[in-house]
Parts: sequence; structure tokens; C-alpha cells
Amino acid sequence: MALKTAAQYFDSLAKMHPTAYVLGDKVPQPSTHPLIKRQCAAVAQTYALAENPAHRKLLTGYSPLIGAEVNRFNKLYESIDDLVTKVKMLRLISNQTGCCFVRCTGMDMMNATFIATYEIDQKYGTTYHHRFVEYLKYIQSQDLAVHSGVTDVKGDRSKRPSEQADPDLYLHVVEKNERGIVVRGAKAHQTGSLCCHEVIVGPTRRMLDSDRDYAVSFATPTDTPGIIHVYGRGTLGERNLSGVDLGNVEFSKFVPMVIFNNVFIPWERVFMCGEYEFASRQVELFGDYHRHSHGGCKSGIGDVLVGAAACIADYNAASGSHINNKLTEMVKTAETMYGCCLAASYEAKQNPAGTYMVDTALANTSKLYEGKEFYEVVRLMMEIAGGLVGDLPSEKDFQNPEVGLLLQKYLKGAPGVSTEDRMRMFRLIEKLAFESGDIASQIHGGGSPEAHRMALLRATDLETKKKLARRVAGIREP
Amino acid sequence: MALKTAAQYFDSLAKMHPTAYVLGDKVPQPSTHPLIKRQCAAVAQTYALAENPAHRKLLTGYSPLIGAEVNRFNKLYESIDDLVTKVKMLRLISNQTGCCFVRCTGMDMMNATFIATYEIDQKYGTTYHHRFVEYLKYIQSQDLAVHSGVTDVKGDRSKRPSEQADPDLYLHVVEKNERGIVVRGAKAHQTGSLCCHEVIVGPTRRMLDSDRDYAVSFATPTDTPGIIHVYGRGTLGERNLSGVDLGNVEFSKFVPMVIFNNVFIPWERVFMCGEYEFASRQVELFGDYHRHSHGGCKSGIGDVLVGAAACIADYNAASGSHINNKLTEMVKTAETMYGCCLAASYEAKQNPAGTYMVDTALANTSKLYEGKEFYEVVRLMMEIAGGLVGDLPSEKDFQNPEVGLLLQKYLKGAPGVSTEDRMRMFRLIEKLAFESGDIASQIHGGGSPEAHRMALLRATDLETKKKLARRVAGIREP
Amino acid sequence: MALKTAAQYFDSLAKMHPTAYVLGDKVPQPSTHPLIKRQCAAVAQTYALAENPAHRKLLTGYSPLIGAEVNRFNKLYESIDDLVTKVKMLRLISNQTGCCFVRCTGMDMMNATFIATYEIDQKYGTTYHHRFVEYLKYIQSQDLAVHSGVTDVKGDRSKRPSEQADPDLYLHVVEKNERGIVVRGAKAHQTGSLCCHEVIVGPTRRMLDSDRDYAVSFATPTDTPGIIHVYGRGTLGERNLSGVDLGNVEFSKFVPMVIFNNVFIPWERVFMCGEYEFASRQVELFGDYHRHSHGGCKSGIGDVLVGAAACIADYNAASGSHINNKLTEMVKTAETMYGCCLAASYEAKQNPAGTYMVDTALANTSKLYEGKEFYEVVRLMMEIAGGLVGDLPSEKDFQNPEVGLLLQKYLKGAPGVSTEDRMRMFRLIEKLAFESGDIASQIHGGGSPEAHRMALLRATDLETKKKLARRVAGIREP
Amino acid sequence: MALKTAAQYFDSLAKMHPTAYVLGDKVPQPSTHPLIKRQCAAVAQTYALAENPAHRKLLTGYSPLIGAEVNRFNKLYESIDDLVTKVKMLRLISNQTGCCFVRCTGMDMMNATFIATYEIDQKYGTTYHHRFVEYLKYIQSQDLAVHSGVTDVKGDRSKRPSEQADPDLYLHVVEKNERGIVVRGAKAHQTGSLCCHEVIVGPTRRMLDSDRDYAVSFATPTDTPGIIHVYGRGTLGERNLSGVDLGNVEFSKFVPMVIFNNVFIPWERVFMCGEYEFASRQVELFGDYHRHSHGGCKSGIGDVLVGAAACIADYNAASGSHINNKLTEMVKTAETMYGCCLAASYEAKQNPAGTYMVDTALANTSKLYEGKEFYEVVRLMMEIAGGLVGDLPSEKDFQNPEVGLLLQKYLKGAPGVSTEDRMRMFRLIEKLAFESGDIASQIHGGGSPEAHRMALLRATDLETKKKLARRVAGIREP
Repeated sequence: MALKTAAQYFDSLAKMHPTAYVLGDKVPQPSTHPLIKRQCAAVAQTYALAENPAHRKLLTGYSPLIGAEVNRFNKLYESIDDLVTKVKMLRLISNQTGCCFVRCTGMDMMNATFIATYEIDQKYGTTYHHRFVEYLKYIQSQDLAVHSGVTDVKGDRSKRPSEQADPDLYLHVVEKNERGIVVRGAKAHQTGSLCCHEVIVGPTRRMLDSDRDYAVSFATPTDTPGIIHVYGRGTLGERNLSGVDLGNVEFSKFVPMVIFNNVFIPWERVFMCGEYEFASRQVELFGDYHRHSHGGCKSGIGDVLVGAAACIADYNAASGSHINNKLTEMVKTAETMYGCCLAASYEAKQNPAGTYMVDTALANTSKLYEGKEFYEVVRLMMEIAGGLVGDLPSEKDFQNPEVGLLLQKYLKGAPGVSTEDRMRMFRLIEKLAFESGDIASQIHGGGSPEAHRMALLRATDLETKKKLARRVAGIREP
Repeated sequence: MALKTAAQYFDSLAKMHPTAYVLGDKVPQPSTHPLIKRQCAAVAQTYALAENPAHRKLLTGYSPLIGAEVNRFNKLYESIDDLVTKVKMLRLISNQTGCCFVRCTGMDMMNATFIATYEIDQKYGTTYHHRFVEYLKYIQSQDLAVHSGVTDVKGDRSKRPSEQADPDLYLHVVEKNERGIVVRGAKAHQTGSLCCHEVIVGPTRRMLDSDRDYAVSFATPTDTPGIIHVYGRGTLGERNLSGVDLGNVEFSKFVPMVIFNNVFIPWERVFMCGEYEFASRQVELFGDYHRHSHGGCKSGIGDVLVGAAACIADYNAASGSHINNKLTEMVKTAETMYGCCLAASYEAKQNPAGTYMVDTALANTSKLYEGKEFYEVVRLMMEIAGGLVGDLPSEKDFQNPEVGLLLQKYLKGAPGVSTEDRMRMFRLIEKLAFESGDIASQIHGGGSPEAHRMALLRATDLETKKKLARRVAGIREP
Repeated sequence: MALKTAAQYFDSLAKMHPTAYVLGDKVPQPSTHPLIKRQCAAVAQTYALAENPAHRKLLTGYSPLIGAEVNRFNKLYESIDDLVTKVKMLRLISNQTGCCFVRCTGMDMMNATFIATYEIDQKYGTTYHHRFVEYLKYIQSQDLAVHSGVTDVKGDRSKRPSEQADPDLYLHVVEKNERGIVVRGAKAHQTGSLCCHEVIVGPTRRMLDSDRDYAVSFATPTDTPGIIHVYGRGTLGERNLSGVDLGNVEFSKFVPMVIFNNVFIPWERVFMCGEYEFASRQVELFGDYHRHSHGGCKSGIGDVLVGAAACIADYNAASGSHINNKLTEMVKTAETMYGCCLAASYEAKQNPAGTYMVDTALANTSKLYEGKEFYEVVRLMMEIAGGLVGDLPSEKDFQNPEVGLLLQKYLKGAPGVSTEDRMRMFRLIEKLAFESGDIASQIHGGGSPEAHRMALLRATDLETKKKLARRVAGIREP
Repeated sequence: MALKTAAQYFDSLAKMHPTAYVLGDKVPQPSTHPLIKRQCAAVAQTYALAENPAHRKLLTGYSPLIGAEVNRFNKLYESIDDLVTKVKMLRLISNQTGCCFVRCTGMDMMNATFIATYEIDQKYGTTYHHRFVEYLKYIQSQDLAVHSGVTDVKGDRSKRPSEQADPDLYLHVVEKNERGIVVRGAKAHQTGSLCCHEVIVGPTRRMLDSDRDYAVSFATPTDTPGIIHVYGRGTLGERNLSGVDLGNVEFSKFVPMVIFNNVFIPWERVFMCGEYEFASRQVELFGDYHRHSHGGCKSGIGDVLVGAAACIADYNAASGSHINNKLTEMVKTAETMYGCCLAASYEAKQNPAGTYMVDTALANTSKLYEGKEFYEVVRLMMEIAGGLVGDLPSEKDFQNPEVGLLLQKYLKGAPGVSTEDRMRMFRLIEKLAFESGDIASQIHGGGSPEAHRMALLRATDLETKKKLARRVAGIREP
């Protein structure tokens, strides 16, 4: 059985017992908590759409590892087609959810780890790659939801991991024994951790010899003893508590911090342990794959933004060339992100481990638009919508017997559109513009824009371009 | 007594009995409600700083109308210096509050109405101007806080006021009698209405003869029977309910909708009633003055954004030329808004009513930067800050005995900076980036960017510029 | 023989006798004129690289029409691979020439005409398609250089072709007889016309029934009696007269106007004649294909700009993060144009005529970056280079015995770089930044940015996106 | 006699005998050379407009130094009004010339030197200030045209002046004797040097003790023995040779390099000699004043660009909201530059030397828009104009008897507009978009954009802004 149904997914989560804190309280059954469950609902779409015959082709693929069809989120990028399909799948799901659905971090980390373990073994004769493949078979056959744990809390940014006043500010090995290792540290921005069965952890940056204990990668269940999930309080989370003014009626993101407070990892789940020169390799592979993923999911969110802007223009009975100009500009940015990532897929190259690596320059180019221009897309949506995006009376006021009818009356827009529908669209726009976890992810997801700029320049063959210029200018080569 | 203390301001509010709904509930004493009181605290700064000898010169001025020093928010723009000082005062107060303080809408509306009533009287021999001056003396001598009611809810944007299916979607006169008029309608985006004693209402757009009943301007107390304030639920409002994770510890904006449900206005408070050709005049005067105000208050907010970005860089121990570049870009936009508005002040011209009108082109130019580039300033702040702006654990978690210390440990940044201070700065950045009422006001306050573009082009003498081009090109004038 | 050598190309041009005017003089042998020959040299690269084994795979392809390998510029887009390869070929050639090489206009027009004639025949049972295929076989087997004639001079832009005061301001049929048709009009922006053997002409815009005579498409040799080429005087053309300060030592663009002064076209070369409803179809097909071509050639020019900027930084001994930032921004735009066009190729769809049509949204998206952001790339190159790009003493001064050595001395840059090389690089940068024909083509080539915006919005399925937004917002479909 | 007429200006130039090379030839009487004289004509406008009663108030002012009215280009900034008037004067003259008129560099350098000499004397008890004032009286009373010599050729940018392989790559003192000093070096980008009577030279950058010989400032006639002017060959210069297709019919810029080949300067003209710590002071003063000047002259050029774009839209009979949007964007940038510089004037502060210094932050903010956004203004003009800006047939073709009438016919635009006028407007647009000296000056004039960014950040009180953020966030001051 390599494919879970959505119902089986929920059931399997219910059987887990992670340690979780939400707004100051310890929560016994987090996956049903109102601040968590709508994120689980988004993850569940990755199961549900795989059951849907119309989308099965995008959502699943054959895995030679277990000789069966697996969910694409647990599949290696074994061909160019896998990478193209990934982008299209992510756009499709975002179109349905208008919200992050978490599993791409795991998918990208699996693929990064597959290559990194191969390369470590090549150099050191270790067996990490075999271990990882065994792990991956387990994940595939159980169809587990996996997320990645990359970003350390980092402490003093001017210092290396081993130089920090508190050695725990980057996750590291604190003990090794015959059975395994014990790790301590904390990973920030762990979108949807409580909706996943497993996490694959890896280093967040380049390491030196002195940082050897920090060069560690492993996988473990999200409810392993010692792991503590702390809900991150973003802007709109609490709307889920009362269940009104949601904007997105079914789905919502949450982004916790996850503390690894002396967590034991058996050796068969350890994929790097001290090979510090591969730390940057794994995280850069993950980074490039994940920027590539964003081109899919965020262009899909872009479609929802464009649709919301076009709808609210209709609902306000606003039209004209200035609306069209703004919509065109919005579409342009979404298509740019998508187009560059598709091209990064088609131009992918096979690596020695056998899987395919996207074109780094094009993947990072795409992400740079998400980091900057996509924010302008959000602004354009608000410019089209008008001021009500900032100050709409609550659904609770609409339900008030004294003032509700007056609000119905005064917030009517175009003929044929109910005030309720118009309010829902404003709330969706609010959600798309102001969910802080989403906006932060657009800027900082898969690394900061500075990281993307450096990656793009590094991927650029400047010397060859200089030669071109010299030849055209008639300058003899030195 | 032309100057109230902050304490007197609070007392005077406490004596009012407005009708107000907040998140579905009728609220008896709104000015002390946790979702309202922090906005009142910001308004109170306009009183407190006027008491402060260091700032008195900016905050007050002599009014010949009552022969006394008055709060500048209730003063006419009687000189270029008044306009320059307004911009500087607004930047100063924003620097202190990091938050809107409401009264500039009233100040700008007073000044617009002063001119509009003068011009109506000149044409029709009416006595609106005298009435308005009497009203202004009352406001000045009592030092009342006034806001303006301009933006109608508008309904179907493709239709004029008199063409709407529901005639009430623009505020209009429904009855006239010897004592006064009765009006009905609703005004959206009434920032801080419940923190003000009075409102001055005027039309929101150009009117035709058929819209005559909609060409109405008047003033009235904010607790006049029939007036209903409905709290607009923005993104971060509810943080004020629990009092944690506030970001801005003292001040917070709220932006309600205000319904005028058959409100009686005595003639002595009516300043336009049917003179439809002056509707656009009043609102354009208000618009140009108010865009000018934004150049002051929003450059002041810009200072806080720049400061917050610079602080968080320190707290993260992040530095380097990329940080400096982003700070410079942020400063550039803030100075642009400020510089253009200062210039608009200095280049002001006296109008026949005797007061001074800002340079329209420069004031609208400034506002266009707020509408677009200022949003990029916000993004740059977030780019500098990093991802924690989107998902910080709550103060409630820090207070939790089990997990609080772990959070303290893991969210430590630069040496010498307490985790608590770092968390506060992240919360401030969240507040500055995600308070939906603020962001919406940056885009749509004082009219939408399209309105500013049209105003700028209208203020541009294209024919003269064409002549310059023809002369330089050697083309004989036709 | 389906492939000419570069030498054969020059020979074949020398045998033609076009009517041409350059700067006021009638020129008997234009292809050797100093203002024309460097453009011919660029076209010759499309022949020379096809002879080069290293590039033959990109530059040629098998044509089933004549059962032989043909130059890719004369090939139909018979597969996705053809479209991908086109983009890569164009980038490659631009890398070598740093200059337009003309033939892509012909290639794109052949492909547009192939489809348009097919569709006309389907509707009307005409035989245009057969005629066109025969013509194409001739072109392929002779390996002729072809350009397209699309843009009419247009006269009064507010009027349709048939409404113009002078009926000739759009090219039209003025006579029909048994042997063929006679056409009159003028086509602007005919890059490299005198370097081509043939031109394929088509309408420039949508036509109505009343414009029926203007709906005409045909092919003809560029020296057909009645055709007059008038050299367009751009900014840097005349450098070629003295042969110094060239910037690009081998290649240079020229963009004439071509007048069709009663030109006879035999029926076998007529591909549309009155089927006005296909006018827009042909030009839109051409437009989309040509915007797609620009993504290839202009990203290739972008490589030269990046290389020139990186070189001049070296030659000035300037370095630092601000240089890297600017280079990264330049690379980003070039990769965006390239990536979107690659994606437009890969996502191409077969059309009923059997060839492949690029993804319109992605091709127009790419072109929008050329129209705007690429100009910023040029500026960044100048920002890196410094002021000498605007005011370098001439090579003639360097040759002057009195002042030449002083200039050598004072214009020395980094150690190890000769002043001459530095000067050459500045001249290349000048050429890349200020050749007016290039810059105008970046903005207006393949239609104006407004045309690209409209094409992008037209290619966007807004209704589906609205549905996505409504579903996420929980709004029932109407 | 403190005011020359334009005729007297030309006469006085004719009496000078500078050493000049143009395109490889030594030119005996440069001020009448076709490549120089149109720049002199622009300078002459600074004399002619001072004679014009309508403009005299802007162009002249009272100088207490000589007790007479002087040309404003030779006047100290003795008040805020002087700085405001400067900006307005510069915009006015640019409006008339559409071209640089040179003298502002001298004006700004006079003012910088006035302050710097005062400060040196304060520290060292030298008499530079007195010397300089005497010199200034001479300039004022003779109404001489003065330019500034600041930018050294710089050689290897990674090295300080005294570290260069060739010590002459920054201008320096090579000999001192009782009568004066001898200097050697070269200054780049010396706009209009041959149209000026005098030059004031100063260091181009911060100096250290080791660079002491390079810390030198002085004034001298432009035909002093040893000074060699070498014409910089820009893009459109040579149009002036044939006198057709000029674009700007009367005025044109030229930007030579000026070599100081062992030039003797008597002590009474030396204003700094070894006081290295004042090198940066003088150049920064000059830089800030000169960026301030650009806000005037370039907004004036901006008016001509806007006018040209609006005219060509008329001439093409093109209209619509997209044209209006582009014009508005163009106006916005011009007004921003102007507004920020006006504000920088109004906010000026008196310095100890007695004159007024502009607000540095606002002046540099303005210049940043010229460096980047103004280039987009140029692009927008071209986007409005259409492709003919790149490839218009020459006036020589219009004069050709065979093809001239056909061109007249085919290049006709809107009814009522002659083809000739339309062509002239396209040529003006070409001139405004492609004169390389102008574009380079927009980017690099008054220092590079990086210099402006650094100046802006340096002028920003970050610590105070951090305090504001901390207070609002509730963080106790450390």
C-alpha cells in the first residue's frame, strides 16, 4: 500500500503524540486543534488529489525503489519529466488550497539527501546512501507526510555555529553511542510540522572543520521524545479560533518553531555525521530544489490573487484599462516565476547519483521574483480592491440583530452580487495579503533574497561572458 | 481655554455616548474598550505634545478667529509657514506614536470647508462661510478632536450616486425643515471616529445636478443620535484584547464604518446643501491637503520602519553592504515623501478665501510614493529582519513555565541584547508590516493611486511643456 | 544544395540590384556600402555557423519539404525541439555578433504564414498554403536570407487603414490582373532589408471588411522593381564610415524604411489577398513567434552586456558587492527573458497546420522584460562603467602625434590592461547602450509593450482564476 | 560692469587661445568650431536671459562683495532664497535650451571653495579665503563663465592617488616656488570647458597624509599654457558637422577631457595646497551643491521630455489612458527631483563661513532619482514615440529629389501636422534619449549613484531612528 487516502492520513496523525504548545498552552491532540487542523486539511489535499483520477497523473508516479506507484511528494526526481510535473502539480494544488500544503519541503529534502549521501559515500566509503534509500522506501510504502528541518535559529549572525556563546544555537550532536546519536538545537520556520509524520533534518549552512558536530543530518518521527513544537503566532491565525472572517474557508498555514531537546536518533536514520564539507552541499541542493518548488506553488497562489482581484473588481463594478493594466502586471509576475521554473526543469541535468538537478540560475531567478515582485502583486490586488481590505466589519457584526441588516445594506456592491459574497472576497484578499507566515515565506522561504542573488551569480559563468564581450570589442585574449 | 490637556481630552470623551459595535457586540463606553483605547491614546498625544514646551511651537499656533493660541489640528493654513509646520508636526508625532493619530483628517477637512464655503457664498450669496467660521471658533475654543467623513460606501462603482439601486449608498439629505436637515448614508474608513468629538462630513466625489441631494456637507458630534460606529476588523486588532504581542506597546489604529441612520443636523452646522458643483471642489481641496498630510505622518512612520530595520539588524548581529543598501533605499523613499510635501508647502499659494493651498502636483507626487514605493519599504524592513517576523512564538509561550526558558534560550540574538527586546522588535516589525488598516491607508488614504495620478496629470501644464519641446526642436508654433 | 557558405551568401547578394538611398545618395551596390556591409557580416554568421561542426546541430535541421538539411532560419517549427533549439541558436549567434542578424524575422514570418495560409484555405478552399509551401521549398533549397515586412508607416494612428487621408499609408493592393497584383505602401523598421534576398510581407494589424484591400500577404525579392530602401539614420551608424570608434568591430545594424512604389507580385507569391479576417491572425502569429525569438537573441545580447560590464569593472580595477549586485540584476533579467522563452517553447502546442505554436502568455511575458527591464540592464552596465562611456576621446585623437601619447597615459586603468583595450571596451559599451536601432527594437520590436500587455491578458484565462478565488473564499458558484 | 551681454560673451571667448583637439585635429579657434559652438550658444543663454527683464530676477542677484548686481552663476548662496532661486533658474534655462549650459559647475565649485577655504584658514591661519574672495570679485565684476575641474582620470580604482603606478593619474603639485605652483594631471568629463573663461580645480576624493601633493585647489584661465582640451566623442556630436538631423536646433553639449600638462598657477589663485584633510570637505560640498543643481536643470530637461512625448503622441494621433499613464509617470519623476531639491533649499542651514548649505539628505535623494528613474522617463518617452526614434531617414534623404517626396508622403502623421515637424520632433526625441554625454551625466554627474547612496546614508541619523523604534516597541534604552 503506497498511497494513503485523506481519511487514512487524518487517522494516522491522530495516533501520534507530539509535544506541542500553542499560545501558551500545551496541546494534547494538536492535529485537531483549530489553529492546526486547517493546515492538516491542506496537507490532506495532497492525498485527496492523488485519489482523484483527474489529477492522479500529476500527483503520483512510479517508484522503482519499491516497484509501485507512490505519491509524488515522496518520489525522487528521476527524470526531467518528474521536475516539470512537480512544478505543475504544485501550481495545481495551490490553485485548490490558496495555501501552503507543506510536503514539498520534505520532497525537496529527500532529493537533496539522496544526492548528498551518495556523494559522501563516494568520498568516504560510508553507507549513508543505502540507509537513506531504505528510509525512503519506508516513507514511500507508508505514504508518510514528511517535512524538512533546515533553518537553525542562528543566534548571533556574525558568528559560525561553533563560535556561538550558546553551542545549541545551531543543532548539533551532543552524544554518540552504539545505537545512535543525541542531538540538541532548534529549527525555526517549520511550516506544518504537526501535520507531518516525519522530519528530515540537515545543516542550514556551510560548515568548517570546527563545526564538525553541527554537520548532521537525520530523519525522525515528529513525535519523537524531546521534540517540542511551539506554535508561531502570525497575524491571522486566531481567526481560526472563532471560525469567522477566515478568508480561506478551509485552509490555513501555521509555522512553528521546533526544539530538539536531546533527541535520540538511531544510526539507521542518520545520513550525515561530521562530514562537514557536505553540509553546504546538502543545503544548497535543498535550496535550489526548494526555490524551484516555490515557482510552482507561488504561481499557483498568484492565480488565486489574480482571480481574487478580478472578482473584487467585478463585485465593486469597477472596470477600465487601469484595472486591466494591474491584472496584467500581476499575471506577468506569476507567469515569470512559473516560466523560469519550468525552464529550470526542462534544462535539468542528471547527476552522478542518477537523479536530476534543476538549472540553478533559472530556479534562483524565479525565486527572486517571488522575493520582491510578488509582494507588488499583493499590493496591486489591494490597489484594485480598495480600502475595505483593511477595515471590514466582522462577520459577528453581520450576525448582530441590530446592526447586521444595516451592514448588509451598506456594503452592497455590484447588482447580482450578495453582500455576503463580496465580504468573503474581501476576507480572502485580506488573508492573501496579510497572513504573515505566507508573506515571510515569499521573501525568506528557501533562503533570503541575498542567498538567491549569491546563488545566481555563482551559477553564472562570468568569464565566458567576458570573453564574448572582448571578442565583439576586438580585444585580443590575454 | 483653547487648549485641552490630555487628561481633559480623555475626560471629555468619557462624557460622550456614541452608539458603537465591536466584533458583534454593542459597546457602552467605547473610548475605554481595549480595541479603541490605544487609538485614543494616540490622539491624546496631539494634546500632550502641545503641552510639552519642547514641541509647543510645532503643535500650536495663534488663531485670529478667537484671538488665542490653538491646537494646530484646529488651525487654518494661514501662511506658508503653517503648511511647513504641519508637515513637520505630523512627522514628529508619528515618530512618537508609530501610529495614526486621526486628527489630521479633521484639520484638512476644516481647511477645505473654509475655502469651499467661501466660494459657494461668493457665487450664491449664501452664508455657509460665516456658519463654518462660527463652528470653527467653537472647535478651536473647546480644543475638540475632529475627524472627517468623506468616503461613501459607494455600492455599484459604475453608477453615480443618484443612479444607485439603493439611494442610500451615498450619504444624502432625506428631509429638510426649518430647523435643519436629516441625512442618511454611510461613510467607510472612518479612522478613529470614536476618539473624536466631532465629525465634518462632505461629499466624496464630483456630483451632477441629478445628484443634488448628495451634495451635502455638515458637522456634528460623533454621538449624535442615529450615528452608528461599527468597528472594522483588521489583522492585528485583537492583540489588544489579550494585551500581549502588541508590537506597538501604547498605540493602535482602528478604522470603523460609520452609519448615518437618519441623523438630524441643524442648519447652523450645514455647510453645503445642494450646490452640487462645489462637491468636487471640497473633496479635491480635502484630498490635496490630506495627501500633503500623509507626506508628513508617513515619512514619520518611515523613520520608525528604518529604525526598526536598523535595530533588528543589530539584534541579529547582521551587517554588511546589503543591509546598508536596503536601509538607504528605505530612507530614500521616506525623504522623498517628506521632501515633496515640504516643497508643496513652500510653493503654496494664497487663495481668495485668504488661506494657503499647497502645490497640487508636488503633494500628489508625494502620495504616489506612499501608494507604491512605501510598500517596498515595508518589504525591505522584512527582508532585513528575516523570517521570524512571520512566525514568532507568542509572549504567552514565553510565560509558560515549561517552554518559556527554552524559547528564551533559542531566540537569543546578538550578545548584549535580551531575547525579550529582540522579540519586542520583531513584534513591532510585524505591527508595522501587517496592520491592515495602516497598509490600506498607505495605498488608498486620501484617495486611490489612480486618483493621485489623475490629480497629478491635471495639475500639469502639458501645453506649455509641448511648447518647450517644439521650440527646442525648431518647430514653428501653429 | 540547401546550405550556402558565407562566401556564397556574399556573392549572391552582390548579384542583386536593389534601389537604395543612404544619407541622401542613391547607392549602386548597397551590400558593400560601409553603412550596410557590417549588417551583412552579421547575417553571414548565420551561414558561417551552420558550416561550423560545433554549431551545425543548432543552426540546421532536416526539412521534410525538400528532404534535406536546411538552415534553421528557413525551417518550420515542426516540433517542440525546433522551438527550443531556435531560442538556443539565437542566443548563441547574438553571443558571437553582439548585434542583430536579421533572419529571425523571416523565419518567424514563414512560420506564421504557413499556419495562416493553411487556415485561409480551410475556410475558403483557396490554394495559398500550397503556394506558400512551394515558395518555402525554393527558399530552403536556395538557402536564401529572408526578412519580413510587417510594420506599416500607419499615418494617423487614430484611423483604420481604409480611413486614412492618403490610402497608401498602409500597404495595399492597387491593381489585380491575371498575372498578379500591384501593391503600394511603405514598411518601416525593415532591419537589414538590403542584406536579404527576399521579403515576406503581411498586414500589420487587425482589418475589417472595409480594409479588404489592405489584407494582403506576399513574398518578393528585395530588388524587385518599385521597391526602394531608404537607410534610417540612427545614432551610431556613421562610425562605420570612418571605421574608427566602432565598438563592435565587425557587426552593425541598420534599419531602413522600405517603400513599395507600385510593385508587381505574381500570383504564385501571393499568400493572402482580401481575406481580411486573417490579417490579425497572421500578424499575431508572427508577433508571438517573434517575441519568442527576442527572448533568445536579446538574452544573448544580455550576455555581452554582462560580459562588458564585468570586463570594464576589471579594467577600471573596480570591485565590491555593489558591482556584484548590479551584475546579478543584469543576469537576472537576461535569464528571465531566456527562461520564459524556453518555457514557452517546451509548453508549445501543435496546431492544425501541423507545426508548433509557442505558449503565448510566456512568450509575451518574456518580451515585456525586454521592453522595460532590459533598458535598466543597459543602465546598470553604464553605472558600472562610469562616465567615460559618454565622452571618450576618439581613436583619431589617440592617433594624433601630439596628443595621442598623453591620452594613452591618462586613460590607463588597471595594471596589465592596455589603454587601447580599455578604450575598446568603453566603445563597445557605448555601442550596446546607444545604438538607437537596438534600443528601439528592444522596446518596440515585435510590437510595442502595450501590444504585449494586451496579448498577455488575452492569453490569460481570467474566468478560471476567478473560480479558484471563489472556491477558496467559500463563495458558491453563480 | 558686472553683467556681460551674450554678444560680449562670444567676443570675450574669441579672444582666448586654448589648446584644443577635436577628432584628431588641433583646432585653432574652438569656440566657433561646429562641434563646440552650440554648447557656447547654451552658455550664452545664461547671459542673454539675464538681460531679459522677464527673467532678470531669477538670473541675477546682488553681491555685497562688489556691491553690484551679478549673474547668479557667479553668486554665493547667501540665503535660502538664493538656493531656491538657483533651482528655479536652472529649470527655466533647461526649459529653453533642452541642453546643459555648463556654468552651474562653476557656481557650485565657487560656493564649495568659499566654505572650504574659510575652514582651512580657521584651522591653519592661512589666507586662502581672502585669496578666493578676491578671485571671486574678479569673476563677478567681469561676469566670466567658470567651470569646475573635479573628476580625475583615476587610473587604477583600487589604489589611492599616491599609490598609482603613474603619479599623474590624479592631478597634483609637481613644483612649488615663490611665485606659485606647477600642476600635472588630467580631469575627465569637463563639460563645456572651451565655452568657459576660467576653471576652478579641486581634488576629486578623500585624501590621506600620503596624498598631500594631490590636495590642491586653484583657479586658472582655460587657455593657460599647458592646458589641453580633448573633445570627447559622444554619440550624436557629429550631427553638428553637417548641420542636419540635429534634434535640438540651437544647442548641443560637448564633454572633453582636460589635460594639465605642467601648468603654472600663481599663489594668488591657489586655494588649497597640501591640507589633505580638507580635500574630501571641498569635494563633498561641491557634490552636494551640484546634486542640488541637477534637481533644477534635469527637471527642466524632464519638462522637455514630457513635452516631446506629448507632442509626438499628438503628431502620431495616438491617445488613450496608456499614454496618459506614461506621461504621468514621467511628470512624477521630474517633480520628485524638483520637489526634493526645492525642499533641500528651503531646509538649508547657514554655515560658519556665512553662506547656506542645502539639506544633504534631500539633495542626494533627488539625485538618486536622476540616476535611475530618470532613465526610465527617457524610455517612457520612447515607448510613447514608437520605433521611428531609432531609424528615421535623414534630412538629406528628404532633400533628395528622387526619394524626398516619397518620404514626405509616407512619414505623414496626424492631419494638420507637417511631416517635417513630425520628423523634427522624432529627432529631438532621439537627441534627448541618445546623446551619450547627457545620459552619462544623468547617471554619473555629481558623482555616481553609489556616492549618492553613501552620502544619503551618512546624512541619516540612524541612531535617533533606532531610538524611535525602541520606544514604540517598549524597549528600555540600554
